[in-house]
Amino acid sequence: MQFELTKEYVSELQECLHDNLAAELLNEVNLLHPADIADICDELSPEEVVLLFQCLDREIATDVLVELEEDVREKLLKNLSSKEIAENFIDNMDSDDAADIMAELSDEKKDEVISAIPDAELASDIVDLLHYPEDSAGGLMAKELIKVRINWTLIQCLREMRKQAEDIEDVYTIYVIDIQDKLIGMLSLKKLLLAPNGATVKDLYFDEVRSVKAYEKSDDIASIMEKYDLVVLPVVDELNRLIGRITIDDVVDVIKEEADKDYQMASGISESVDSTDSVRVLTRARLPWLLVGLLGGILGALVIGQYEDTLQIYPEMALFIPLIAAMGGNVGVQSSAIIVQGLANNSLGFDNLIQRLGKEFLVALLNGLVCSVLIFIYTIVYKDSNELAATVSVALVLVIIFAGLFGTFVPLMLDKYKIDPALATGPFITTMNDIVGLFIYFGIGHLMYIWL
Amino acid sequence: MQFELTKEYVSELQECLHDNLAAELLNEVNLLHPADIADICDELSPEEVVLLFQCLDREIATDVLVELEEDVREKLLKNLSSKEIAENFIDNMDSDDAADIMAELSDEKKDEVISAIPDAELASDIVDLLHYPEDSAGGLMAKELIKVRINWTLIQCLREMRKQAEDIEDVYTIYVIDIQDKLIGMLSLKKLLLAPNGATVKDLYFDEVRSVKAYEKSDDIASIMEKYDLVVLPVVDELNRLIGRITIDDVVDVIKEEADKDYQMASGISESVDSTDSVRVLTRARLPWLLVGLLGGILGALVIGQYEDTLQIYPEMALFIPLIAAMGGNVGVQSSAIIVQGLANNSLGFDNLIQRLGKEFLVALLNGLVCSVLIFIYTIVYKDSNELAATVSVALVLVIIFAGLFGTFVPLMLDKYKIDPALATGPFITTMNDIVGLFIYFGIGHLMYIWL
Repeated sequence: MQFELTKEYVSELQECLHDNLAAELLNEVNLLHPADIADICDELSPEEVVLLFQCLDREIATDVLVELEEDVREKLLKNLSSKEIAENFIDNMDSDDAADIMAELSDEKKDEVISAIPDAELASDIVDLLHYPEDSAGGLMAKELIKVRINWTLIQCLREMRKQAEDIEDVYTIYVIDIQDKLIGMLSLKKLLLAPNGATVKDLYFDEVRSVKAYEKSDDIASIMEKYDLVVLPVVDELNRLIGRITIDDVVDVIKEEADKDYQMASGISESVDSTDSVRVLTRARLPWLLVGLLGGILGALVIGQYEDTLQIYPEMALFIPLIAAMGGNVGVQSSAIIVQGLANNSLGFDNLIQRLGKEFLVALLNGLVCSVLIFIYTIVYKDSNELAATVSVALVLVIIFAGLFGTFVPLMLDKYKIDPALATGPFITTMNDIVGLFIYFGIGHLMYIWL
Repeated sequence: MQFELTKEYVSELQECLHDNLAAELLNEVNLLHPADIADICDELSPEEVVLLFQCLDREIATDVLVELEEDVREKLLKNLSSKEIAENFIDNMDSDDAADIMAELSDEKKDEVISAIPDAELASDIVDLLHYPEDSAGGLMAKELIKVRINWTLIQCLREMRKQAEDIEDVYTIYVIDIQDKLIGMLSLKKLLLAPNGATVKDLYFDEVRSVKAYEKSDDIASIMEKYDLVVLPVVDELNRLIGRITIDDVVDVIKEEADKDYQMASGISESVDSTDSVRVLTRARLPWLLVGLLGGILGALVIGQYEDTLQIYPEMALFIPLIAAMGGNVGVQSSAIIVQGLANNSLGFDNLIQRLGKEFLVALLNGLVCSVLIFIYTIVYKDSNELAATVSVALVLVIIFAGLFGTFVPLMLDKYKIDPALATGPFITTMNDIVGLFIYFGIGHLMYIWL
């Protein structure tokens, strides 16, 4: 079932929904993949989403609810009673999805829904999961998994699996535990399937298994699963007892979100937005950094104001203000991007701060000299002013070196003090480098004017 | 086996390697995960990597080779004969890994290695895979998979699986094909394991399976697997015959690389680098965009030069040159980032170009008015000049609107003409907006001077 979402399809569907038609189109929606139905809901009004959900089979509706964008889901759940949410949706979900959705509800509604969940075991699993922070292993894991004891025979295994596996859609690995519930190994379905008669778990299991503790951070989990090519990762408590498993699909979402967030921060957008958000949300997400830029611009004006007399003697210095400001900003963004990405990918190597700054100094010096020679030649040829040429080219190389060092230093420091280094890229670095760049430029211009 | 790479560990290992010691440390390396050993190799010199490889068990060495960074692997393979590469490494690999590594070799060496591979079937699989572009489904897929015919009994299935599954490490799904090798469904191991005696494939298989064609683009594959939470995706040819499978670990790498590339492009870095690369490589990756910025600065100087007489009458206009330039850049980067991300995530919705620009106009107008009012008040209060205040604030709102529209328009156009829209973000948009911003600013200043 390849499905392509078109504007025509959505309008046809909207017509059916509004005219309250028991149209074939509405029945056919049930044949689509829940992720596709969620995409359709993105294009509908909140009222239309409620109407569409009434046409969905219960099982499909549950899967669609999990896939919905958070804001669409929020509006839908507001229209439903706690009892409906618990019985029609939560009760059919995996514990991790259920906990994620519950975490979005108000405290009051959360309590109501939990006490209305018919399946007591699921309710208790959800309460457990809600204790973990959203961005920890505990917040990512599902409680559903298949575990067998080390001393079981394969027949026992299969019998137990039949019992346990019913609720679990994708079984990748069976975990092996000892009598204290401690995780001691794993068993692949392939091994089990191809095992000779009479074998026991002990004969077949693999006694090395990578696991994580429940409190570990989700971005560390993502690095581990990415690095070791894992599809599923067991989660243990402090006593190494198996308490859940994390699957790669949830981690792919974490990787994607992290990357999107860094990109948006580097671009000066302060909340996660996309182009379908309202004008109000988009404006709010973008204004904070513009105000930082505005403040930077005012500080820049103050710097230039300090050197008004220099500017009067060398009015031509005004020509290269944008050049100096832009180059400082560009170099700073480049340097900080390399550090931010290195931190995110754990690929910075072992250099210490001094070595790193030393290397950045060399790179900046090289780039600076190339740019500086070019602008020197341009200024001599077209402006025919030795003083201006000297000022601009000396200032440029110094600005590039400063911006490189500053762009390297700031994210490393932020990281050291546990602040997201991605904050440093984008407008903040650009703005700071603008200001310092102007200082350097006019400072040198001023010295020229004293000397000559 | 949790392993943490430290500087001390690396130096100790280097000592052992140089002193040619049959130290325990070298034997213990074999107990590490291949991905960890590859990380160690990142910190060693090419000669040390060769020495380390001599201490590794053959199977481990093969896995490490797959995990190595491309530049480290290139240097290692240069030291090995084609026969060694074929027999010691390629022959033990999955076809997709083997093909990826072969694609990095020179044409001559590639031919030599292929003809030296002992396993004829693998050699033919590799030749097949090498035909596909690296960024297509064919370039991502492995040929190893388990397929069964629809008319088989479970006993036949298991017998055949025993034969096929030996080479395949992770079996997630068994594919069901008809007598023409066409893909018609799939069978989960769980189903097979829990099936009653005497069942046939026909009774158990699931007749809906999502597949992709071999020529589809890797970023589309990534979107599909991400959206539908797939762990493995079968690849078919034009006649729907099953030819391979793509696993999520390879796609995670694609997602990560795409995100890193976009981030680097937005930051003005032209090739994929990290901070451990040499000064030469880092300089080369950063210089191109700095030269674009330099050119932009020179054009900016030309624009200001055009308005030298205006600047003589209103010398205070120089104060706000950095503000105008920076704000245009910031807004442009924000707008283009939203579009680039929307294009990458297929989340732009159905708005056409006019609607999109209309919305961006409103956002820019709102942000522009806020910034403009603030700068107007500042200028009136601290500079006590009505003309300057009017010029700066009117120019600012126009610059923000222009930058927003331009930042929205350019990536959409690039995408329309199949050029990577991420090119538009970063220095290009910033530079263009700098120049146009200066035009607007001085143009308005010039009008003021004529009118007043």
